[in-house]
Amino acid sequence: TGGFGMAQVALEAPDGPAFYEYVAQGAETLAKTRPTAQNLFYAIEKVKAAIDKAPDVAAARRAAVAMAQAIADEDAASCESIGRIGGTLIRDGARVMTHCNAGWLAFVDWGTALAPIYNAHRAGRKVFVFADETRPRGQGASLTAWELGNEGVPFKIIPDNASGYLMRKGEIDLVIVGSDRIAANGDVANKIGTYEKAVLAHELGIPFYVAAPSSTIDPNCPDGDAIPIEERSQDEVLYAYGLQDDGKLGRVRVAPAGASARNPAFDVTPARYIKNIITEKGIFAPERILDSVKTRE
Amino acid sequence: TGGFGMAQVALEAPDGPAFYEYVAQGAETLAKTRPTAQNLFYAIEKVKAAIDKAPDVAAARRAAVAMAQAIADEDAASCESIGRIGGTLIRDGARVMTHCNAGWLAFVDWGTALAPIYNAHRAGRKVFVFADETRPRGQGASLTAWELGNEGVPFKIIPDNASGYLMRKGEIDLVIVGSDRIAANGDVANKIGTYEKAVLAHELGIPFYVAAPSSTIDPNCPDGDAIPIEERSQDEVLYAYGLQDDGKLGRVRVAPAGASARNPAFDVTPARYIKNIITEKGIFAPERILDSVKTRE
Repeated sequence: TGGFGMAQVALEAPDGPAFYEYVAQGAETLAKTRPTAQNLFYAIEKVKAAIDKAPDVAAARRAAVAMAQAIADEDAASCESIGRIGGTLIRDGARVMTHCNAGWLAFVDWGTALAPIYNAHRAGRKVFVFADETRPRGQGASLTAWELGNEGVPFKIIPDNASGYLMRKGEIDLVIVGSDRIAANGDVANKIGTYEKAVLAHELGIPFYVAAPSSTIDPNCPDGDAIPIEERSQDEVLYAYGLQDDGKLGRVRVAPAGASARNPAFDVTPARYIKNIITEKGIFAPERILDSVKTRE
Repeated sequence: TGGFGMAQVALEAPDGPAFYEYVAQGAETLAKTRPTAQNLFYAIEKVKAAIDKAPDVAAARRAAVAMAQAIADEDAASCESIGRIGGTLIRDGARVMTHCNAGWLAFVDWGTALAPIYNAHRAGRKVFVFADETRPRGQGASLTAWELGNEGVPFKIIPDNASGYLMRKGEIDLVIVGSDRIAANGDVANKIGTYEKAVLAHELGIPFYVAAPSSTIDPNCPDGDAIPIEERSQDEVLYAYGLQDDGKLGRVRVAPAGASARNPAFDVTPARYIKNIITEKGIFAPERILDSVKTRE
């Protein structure tokens, strides 16, 4: 998506010398849309490099589109590999918990956290998913639930508050989440609430996996504390969004007038709570995650 | 509330021998409204005992109302004590996290978990509250937020998912929650999500307190695993309820058609994650909680 965003910028940019300034500006704007997302920066930089290498504006536009397509193809191939490699961790009858959405709505074709689930399901193994609703934006209750329904994977949505209860009751065998950025030491930034689930899984001896393409790894980021955490609009917390009874999109205010909220959108899970990181290159202990980057370029 | 419910049953009951059967039936129905709630059973039993001791139906009705009022007065006095005793734990400038609502909307006059906060605030100490929104029913975002606003205590609502992030960032000094039932070994049943917050606080060395009147303690319940956990309607998870933009109460569906949900309403926090339990008799280590009952009767 970041790659195609940059290609779009190149197509919209004016001709002449203003082209390059417009592209640089566009790259900056796109990068700011999600300061946590390493693979967004990765795509922006790759497309920008292709533009800068082209001899003229027309060639730069062609190069931008071609590179965006190449990144999307690479992304799809990565996710397919993550599914194949991560699928081996899901035995017949497994009950998997996920947080947020890292399926094909977020990544090309297969997704990341959901790819191993789809792989196991298509291979004929029984797999059941508990989808955290993932307040405040509800990606689990909406996107993940919609994807799983379409794939025919049996699942239940659970309130974020219920994950610990179900883990403690022995109803969850493993947890798989995606990631927005992985630091060099294996600390992982992901949707708010991921850290809570990882600590609980660790406490109860339930394996906690992160599934992410190696483009998510930031070798220049020493540890999770160096990852900036975006605070988003408090309206995401003060209101709930969804379909009204009349079928139209709407919202209800869940807080009294005058109340305000905090809304950090991501958190960092320290490497020690993560069992393994599943990438398209294989399964890595978090502290060995840089091994997966060595063969990347 | 349970006491007045039973008094209401006594007032509604038919005259004659059918009176006692109606009362017994009413007690059973009331007890089923919330199978976790020890102090509900406590009130029902006390009113029922007063009814059974009365010489005739008219006297039984008077006794029921008088006992309900006595329980309410006792409850208010307990909560006032909990506030005074628990208030000593809140130093000037403290940032307190709460989960669910255990204020005066749940308990008479002062509430339990919020009573120490009100006490500190009225004593002139600065106190800031992070109120977990407490999905799926949102008691934190609605009831607690409304109470704190009315009391003039500064606060922010946070998504349940953000509590771990804020604890890890050092923005939370202590946690206080209420309880529906406390087992003899100090295990505590409370609103779903309480267990998660307790584990996180424990992991990060943040003191986690439970505030509850001694009527919440069930000496006949050996440990938390013996406390029944109610599963409520999945609609509470699939929909969000609140005020529409037109000012009317309404709901939005946050999940796609065909999706289903799990909705356990409570969970159990093992005693080892709890620093202390604040009752009207004093502050007790969870494993010494029965000491608070010895002087109760």
